[in-house]
Formats: sequence, structure tokens, C-alpha cells
Amino acid sequence: MAPPLRLGIAGLGTVGTGVVRIAQTHPELLSARAGRQIAIAAVSARTRGLDRGVPLDAYAWEDDPVALARRDDIDVLVELIGGEGGPAKAAVEAAIAAGKDVVTANKAMLALHGQALAEAAEAKGHVIRFEAAVAGGIPVVKALTEGLAGNEITRVMGVMNGTCNYILTRMEDAGLDYQQVFSEAEKLGYLEADPTLDVGGIDAGHKLALLAAIAFGTRVEFGAMDIEGIERITIDDIRQAADMGFRIKLLGVAQVTGRGLETRMSPCLVPADSPIGQLENAMNMVVLEGDSVGQIVLRGAGAGEGPTASAVMSDIIDIARGTRLSTFGQPAAGLRTAQGARASSPAPFYLRMMLVDKPGALAKIAAALGDAGISIDRMRQYGHDSATAPVLIVTHKTTRSALREAIGDMAGTGVLASEPVAIRIEDV
Amino acid sequence: MAPPLRLGIAGLGTVGTGVVRIAQTHPELLSARAGRQIAIAAVSARTRGLDRGVPLDAYAWEDDPVALARRDDIDVLVELIGGEGGPAKAAVEAAIAAGKDVVTANKAMLALHGQALAEAAEAKGHVIRFEAAVAGGIPVVKALTEGLAGNEITRVMGVMNGTCNYILTRMEDAGLDYQQVFSEAEKLGYLEADPTLDVGGIDAGHKLALLAAIAFGTRVEFGAMDIEGIERITIDDIRQAADMGFRIKLLGVAQVTGRGLETRMSPCLVPADSPIGQLENAMNMVVLEGDSVGQIVLRGAGAGEGPTASAVMSDIIDIARGTRLSTFGQPAAGLRTAQGARASSPAPFYLRMMLVDKPGALAKIAAALGDAGISIDRMRQYGHDSATAPVLIVTHKTTRSALREAIGDMAGTGVLASEPVAIRIEDV
Repeated sequence: MAPPLRLGIAGLGTVGTGVVRIAQTHPELLSARAGRQIAIAAVSARTRGLDRGVPLDAYAWEDDPVALARRDDIDVLVELIGGEGGPAKAAVEAAIAAGKDVVTANKAMLALHGQALAEAAEAKGHVIRFEAAVAGGIPVVKALTEGLAGNEITRVMGVMNGTCNYILTRMEDAGLDYQQVFSEAEKLGYLEADPTLDVGGIDAGHKLALLAAIAFGTRVEFGAMDIEGIERITIDDIRQAADMGFRIKLLGVAQVTGRGLETRMSPCLVPADSPIGQLENAMNMVVLEGDSVGQIVLRGAGAGEGPTASAVMSDIIDIARGTRLSTFGQPAAGLRTAQGARASSPAPFYLRMMLVDKPGALAKIAAALGDAGISIDRMRQYGHDSATAPVLIVTHKTTRSALREAIGDMAGTGVLASEPVAIRIEDV
Repeated sequence: MAPPLRLGIAGLGTVGTGVVRIAQTHPELLSARAGRQIAIAAVSARTRGLDRGVPLDAYAWEDDPVALARRDDIDVLVELIGGEGGPAKAAVEAAIAAGKDVVTANKAMLALHGQALAEAAEAKGHVIRFEAAVAGGIPVVKALTEGLAGNEITRVMGVMNGTCNYILTRMEDAGLDYQQVFSEAEKLGYLEADPTLDVGGIDAGHKLALLAAIAFGTRVEFGAMDIEGIERITIDDIRQAADMGFRIKLLGVAQVTGRGLETRMSPCLVPADSPIGQLENAMNMVVLEGDSVGQIVLRGAGAGEGPTASAVMSDIIDIARGTRLSTFGQPAAGLRTAQGARASSPAPFYLRMMLVDKPGALAKIAAALGDAGISIDRMRQYGHDSATAPVLIVTHKTTRSALREAIGDMAGTGVLASEPVAIRIEDV
């Protein structure tokens, strides 16, 4: 049997503790599968004394993750600190410089600096693995990079932020408005320290950027993505959508169209009876489409100690088994610069707005849409008991830019009581 | 760049042709991902002259797959002949003896001879890969062997024969009886040459045996499996199940219980609104459960040229990339002999029977169940216009053996007009 694979684990929060727990619970199982022992050599975290529910005395301790990364007695840095820069990135850079492989769950760091980090690691013949960075326990990075490697990928799509899906599901089930459920989620500890990362769609956007790079062989370009969060979704939107047979999901889509690579993360109306429409609570779902395989759907827990640690451990076992892949499935230095689509592909849209309740208001809205070349599928003004009237419009296929133009025009008419909400209707 | 990986493809049916097509359509994509060229060196099939829709002139031809397997100019034998023994097995054995790696889609061969073949290959340091043998395009072998390698697997479950799922779905949608849809499927070419392999649950059983070996680290023992096909399911069963909120699926389950490893393939009633219950037509779905990851669900096409060839190509690319795993995720020689559960775990059962229409018949049935310790959840005798009365019973949790005993007793009462159908109700 080969010598043990020695790990240095940086970060002992939920995920780090989970990885330690798996290593301590299943040493024989891991050795049998990996062909060698998986041994934790050293750990590092911000606070040393905490009781984390797992014994740590057998491992060397480093206060500084960079010092951990450089230790001679580790083969792999397992970076579970988080955050796009700071100590996480410093530790990963130190590990690469010191000739170590890296396993990380850090989507922000990879989405923003993954290109440079991958090039640096690959120049030295080392690997960076990140299964846990995307959709928690679902082995989607592996499915895409390896399982579907014989396919030209045509579309990658998914619900990849469990917190947003929890909020949207809970709003619908309990009939609560966004702010109420947001506060609940905050109290339950479901939100990141900066909640905008979750509800603003940024966290999910980071994940999509990584999948897109693998799928399309393009450089990781987080900046090119269209991102919109769920903050403006109301319980009214959810009810109206349900009435029409839809549910609202924070959906990421990456696809190559005639106009280039389109990557966007935004709330969408999806058919209520589609697999994505039926996804409940904090679950994640990723849909992969390839020219040979057709459509593959993967569902599982997108977060939490066990699922995320499971993904980290799978990367560790791959390294122990001698599997050595390029970070994004092909050499990072050879990835193409994506020809970003300037506009997303046309789709029908759901529009909700509040109009001041006076004659001709609706006509002005309809005219603004017409002037922008947008035709209306259905329109509905519904019950109200105030000076403003809620109006719901479903358009035929149009573009986001035509819609922006129309909404701009509407603003000039003086009949809008608030800015309209526009939600894409996606055929999933 | 490394030298090309040279393939010898044995078998040019649907899947073999599909693999050739992918190699010809995407040479650059495959090279970029594999880090080297994927080159077909030689092919073999029963009939040479056929127009298969792909040019084959550039490849050497062998009439004999064993001769193909031994050629000096191939690195990998891609075995797509099928059949548990015969030329397929001979070619694989020749390839192993000649020091080649093997990629195969042959579930029957692996379920019956995989243990010996894997041991032989591993003794020589060669690999056998078989992603395409289970659930077509779904990368489930990879998900289980690699993606969930950090987990103690608790249950593997799935619908893995698209033809059976097509038949059951079509019966329900069109209100047709089994024989009618079976004939349709036969005409459409959906059935294996020996249809018992499909409708008898054997093909799906082969697949489950392979997953169970990986999941539980046990020797591949196809013989130990409880197998039952869909031949006795009637449109009446489907309708009665639907009335109760269930659908009937040919479901495979492998799990470790207190009494050992339970592996069974049989028609089951599953909740109509569960992911498995909603699986339509020829789709496949596999559910993997692990102690850390929780539940992962994978869905996709289980057969067909594109999906199956996609899976074959992923194995080829893995080999090209230098990934070298044991066939079943750990050395075959070290796999444990499964402690087979003598009885499957208890469950509620659906029972349908035809009784001769005379007083006391129902009481005798109820007594037979009572005597076997089976309690009845609901019982219903429904409309009929003949001398026999259809009766539907749902039991509380019981065992298959108690049920066998009760059905044996019923036979002695003289009130049965035909042998009862018993279908397990599975909580998926």
C-alpha cells in the first residue's frame, strides 16, 4: 500500500469539522477505497480552544493557515476558510508555491481568482479540486468534468443556492412575505455573514461561473455574468405565478447561443411540474445537457456539514488514488476567452407593477410595451383597495433589453406607483 | 502531449457506432479534455459490409474480436458486443491477457463474471471500466465509486430498465393491458432479443448487482438477488395503485439491514408524487444514500445510442487522462462475501386476487392472512360481472415469507380463482 496521504486542514467551521469527522469515523473504509491511509497531519483555525465535537489533539496545530500550507508533513492543503481573498487565498497560493495539491470548497475565491490559481498550480504539476464549491454534496463537478467529458455541452442550468430556494419555498408554503422569511432564515443561521451573497444571487453566480468554465472550456469570468437576486420577489408574485402553473426559482443558466456564451443567474418562472419547479426547501438541482447524453438531472443537499464534507472527501480520495485532472477539465492556460453574449436569449417575461389608479394608466403601459416591440400574451388588473392598482402582464418572447427600454418609457408616463418587477419565464 | 490512446472497438451495433460517431465528431474537444488524442485503431463486428452511417475505412478490421483484443496497436479494448459469455467474454479475457485496459457496456458479463475478470485485470495492473453498463448516460458508477467515496453507503435504489418503465408508463397513459403494450414495444424494437432479460427484471438486476458491489464493498453476486419481473402487472393493478396515490415501478433496492445485505429487483408501489413515482417513459433514475451526503438523485436516459456512447467515452477519457481505479472502487480480491439477507425487510404489500364469488370467500382470505400474522390495512372487493370477484388488499408491514405462507394457505381454501399478485409498497 502506498504511504498515507497527509492532509493539512485550514478552517474548522462546519465543513472542516465535518471532514475531520468523516476521517475519524471511517478510516478503514477510506483506506480501502483510496488504496492508502487518509491521515490528517495538521489543522489550523482562528480559535484554538473551541470544543468542535471532534478530538484534535492528534494533529499539529498552526495559528496561521499559510504556515500550515507550507508544512513539510502535508501533501494536500484542504482549504475550508472561505472568503474570496484574505487568508484563504494566501494559504492556497502558499500551498501551490510549496508544491502541494489543493482541495477547496471556496467558490468565491475560485470564481474570482480561479483562473490565475489554476494556471499557477498546473504550471507546477499540482491539482486544485473543488467539488464542494458547487452544489454541496452533489458530485456535479465530477459529472460535468469526467462523466460527460465525451459531450459537447449545450446547456448547464441549476438551482444552486439552498437558502434562496428555502426562502422562496417557505414564502409559498406559509404565505409569508419576503422580509418575514428572510428574518426567519437569519435567525436560523441559514444566511452568510453578508446575506447579499445568498439573496443577491452572487453565491449561486460563483458556482455557475465555475461550471460554465468546465462546460464550455472558457476562462473563469465571473464579471461577465448577469446577476439578479430574489430580494424583490413578493408573496404576490409567487401566488400569481402559481395561478399560471409556475413556481419562482433562483435559476442559473449557462448556454452557448448564436450570440455567444450566455451566463445568467436570476429569479425565473419555471413550470410547477418540472423537476426544477418541484425542488423544495434547501435542496439543489443541476441540469446538464450534452449533445450525446441528452439531459442529466442531479439533485441533492447543496449545503450542510455532511454533504459538503462528503464532496471535500471525494476530492481527497481522488488525489489519494492518483487521479490528476486539470482544475477545469483541460489545461487552464488553454481555456478560451468567452465570447460573452451581449444580450440574453429572448424569453417570455412576467411583469408586475403598481399603477396609480386613474383612467388611461393601463393604456400607457400597453403603449410603452408596444413601442419597444413587445407584444402582450395576457394582462390582468386585479383587486385592490387603495389608490394604486396591481397589474400583471405576461409578454410574448422578448429580450431583457427591450424590456428595459419599455420600463424606462413607462417611468416617463407618470402612471407607475413603483418600479415594475420583471421575471423571466424559463422553459426548463 | 502524450501519445494517442489507441482503441479497438469490438461490436458495431447502436452503441459501438455511437462511440465511433463521437470520436469522429469531436476530435479536438476530446483531445483537449483527455490531454491526448483519442484514436480508433481497429474495429470488429459480425458483418463487415454494412452501412453503419459512419466511415470505417480508416480503421483496421478484424472479423474476430479476440484477434482485435490482442492487436499490438491498441491500448484499450472497447467491448460493445454484449452477452454474458461468448465472444464478448473471450475478447475481454484476451485483452486482459494481452495487457490492455477494457471499457465495456456489458452488464450481463460483469454481473456474472465480473469478479473473476476484475481480479484478473487487477492482478496485471489493468483496469476494467463499465459506466455504460448501468443506467446508460447517467454517470452513476462514477458518482458512487468516486463522488460518494467518503460515505458509508446505506442504500442504492433505482429504476434501471427503460423498457419496463416505458411499458408501465404507457399502460397507465393509454389504459392498455400488459400484453398490448408488450407487443407495441416489441414492434418498436425496444426489447432485447430475449425479452425476459427486460421484462423479467434480469437486465435491471445485473445493473443493481454491480452497484451493490461498489456500494458495499462486496463480491459481485448476481445469484443472491431476489428478482421478479413486470409480466404479471395488469392495467387493473396500475389503476388501483393510482387510486391510492401510487405508481408501479420496477424498482431495484440494495441496502444493508440488520439481517445482512438485501438486494432485490421487483415491481413496487411507490408514492406517485415521489421523484421515482414521477419518472416517465424510458428514463432511468438512481437514488444513492450515504451517511454524510444524505440522498443524491440522478436522472437521465438509460439507453440509446447517444447516452450509452457518452458513458463509454467518459471511461475512455478517464483512461486517457491516466485515472486508474479498481473495477469496483477497491481491489476486487479484497471484496467481502456479502452476508445475504435471507429475507427482505418488512413492508406493506398490495395484494390483488380473483375470488370465486361465493359466501365466505373473503373471510377465508382474511383468515389465511391472520394465521400468517399479517394484519390488513384496507380491503376492497370491487365491481364485477362474472363468476369471479376481484379483491384488493393492502396489508400492514409484513414480510415476503409471511405473505408466501398466507398465499399458500389461501390456495388450500378453494376460493382463489387465480394466483394472487403481491406487490411491495416501497417508501422511496
